[in-house]
Amino acid sequence: MHGLYLVTDRGLIGDRRITDVVTAAVEGGASCVQVREKDASTRELVEIATRLRYLLHSLGVPLIVNDRIDVALAVGADGVHLGQRDMDYPTARRLLGPDAVVGLSVETMEEVGQADAYDVDYLGVSPIFATPTKRDTRGAWGLDGLARVRRRSQHPLVAIGGLDVSNAAAAVEAGADAVAVVSAICAASNPRQAAAELVAQIDAAMSARS
Amino acid sequence: MHGLYLVTDRGLIGDRRITDVVTAAVEGGASCVQVREKDASTRELVEIATRLRYLLHSLGVPLIVNDRIDVALAVGADGVHLGQRDMDYPTARRLLGPDAVVGLSVETMEEVGQADAYDVDYLGVSPIFATPTKRDTRGAWGLDGLARVRRRSQHPLVAIGGLDVSNAAAAVEAGADAVAVVSAICAASNPRQAAAELVAQIDAAMSARS
Repeated sequence: MHGLYLVTDRGLIGDRRITDVVTAAVEGGASCVQVREKDASTRELVEIATRLRYLLHSLGVPLIVNDRIDVALAVGADGVHLGQRDMDYPTARRLLGPDAVVGLSVETMEEVGQADAYDVDYLGVSPIFATPTKRDTRGAWGLDGLARVRRRSQHPLVAIGGLDVSNAAAAVEAGADAVAVVSAICAASNPRQAAAELVAQIDAAMSARS
Repeated sequence: MHGLYLVTDRGLIGDRRITDVVTAAVEGGASCVQVREKDASTRELVEIATRLRYLLHSLGVPLIVNDRIDVALAVGADGVHLGQRDMDYPTARRLLGPDAVVGLSVETMEEVGQADAYDVDYLGVSPIFATPTKRDTRGAWGLDGLARVRRRSQHPLVAIGGLDVSNAAAAVEAGADAVAVVSAICAASNPRQAAAELVAQIDAAMSARS
């Protein structure tokens, strides 16, 4: 997991088509898309994920489903993202198999330590900053917290929460391998340009780091 | 599917343990249990379903999970119950395999007709009467509607919605193979006695019908 990671929110996407916004984000350089629509029924979620699955496979970009392993299996998604209130990691891995991408949110250093025992594909360090799009989390990590997770864990890190073009580079400097955004793309009037600007920041910071 | 079918609601169960209430219902004669906890996180649902799975397998009673195929797969439940806003039947059957119990709620005669093409294990005719425990449905079938479904469909029918000891027999007389209840057991001060009284009504009506 690296670069720019888009998490969907159809509320923020509004009247636009989710496939149009996701297409624009990928054209702008997003390298991974997670469908996260907490208010959707299972049927709606399968319909949205099916459309994104065909779109993203044609674009060569992986589709991750938030929480719902059944939906991921139904649509042939590349993997799932698990929160700490979602299915436990070992069970999710068993249901999805060794080739699926499985990411896990960590909100405390204790959870970071627990994840040492797991062959997760990445840890979602969440939230870096407080954000209105995800409210069921504990305190925010901050960039210092992200740097502490970086020193503590061997797993690839996806930073999420309150990230945009103003702080994406700082997240990479603090140790993020990828920067996940919701509103910075879903609420942007020009999602392609928003993604391209984020990718430019992320790439520059990544080059400076290595 | 036959006899008394319990659907859980931990809000109605209150401070009691869900396993105690389910045990009492099975001792009273319930022959199937569906876990339906719409407000639970995935992790909570897996925890509840795991406890019920071990309990019910020891009692020889099937466990059905509402909506969540991933949870059913995770805990080794016997099947799932699908609403019309849950995963579509063919996809659910593909994920669960031919041996799983898959039930499908029908709220209109058009949906009853669509189900002719499916090898569902039962149709949930929902709701028979309006009920506060499930509000996302269209109009109520009534006993007349249930009788029309009985004439129209070859599938086993589970009647649900507003059923209790006062009308369970009438539902069987109208064509139900099983009577599903939520509050009539979950809110009962003596769930074992409540289940036994329902089973007595159902069995008597079933004997009179055959």
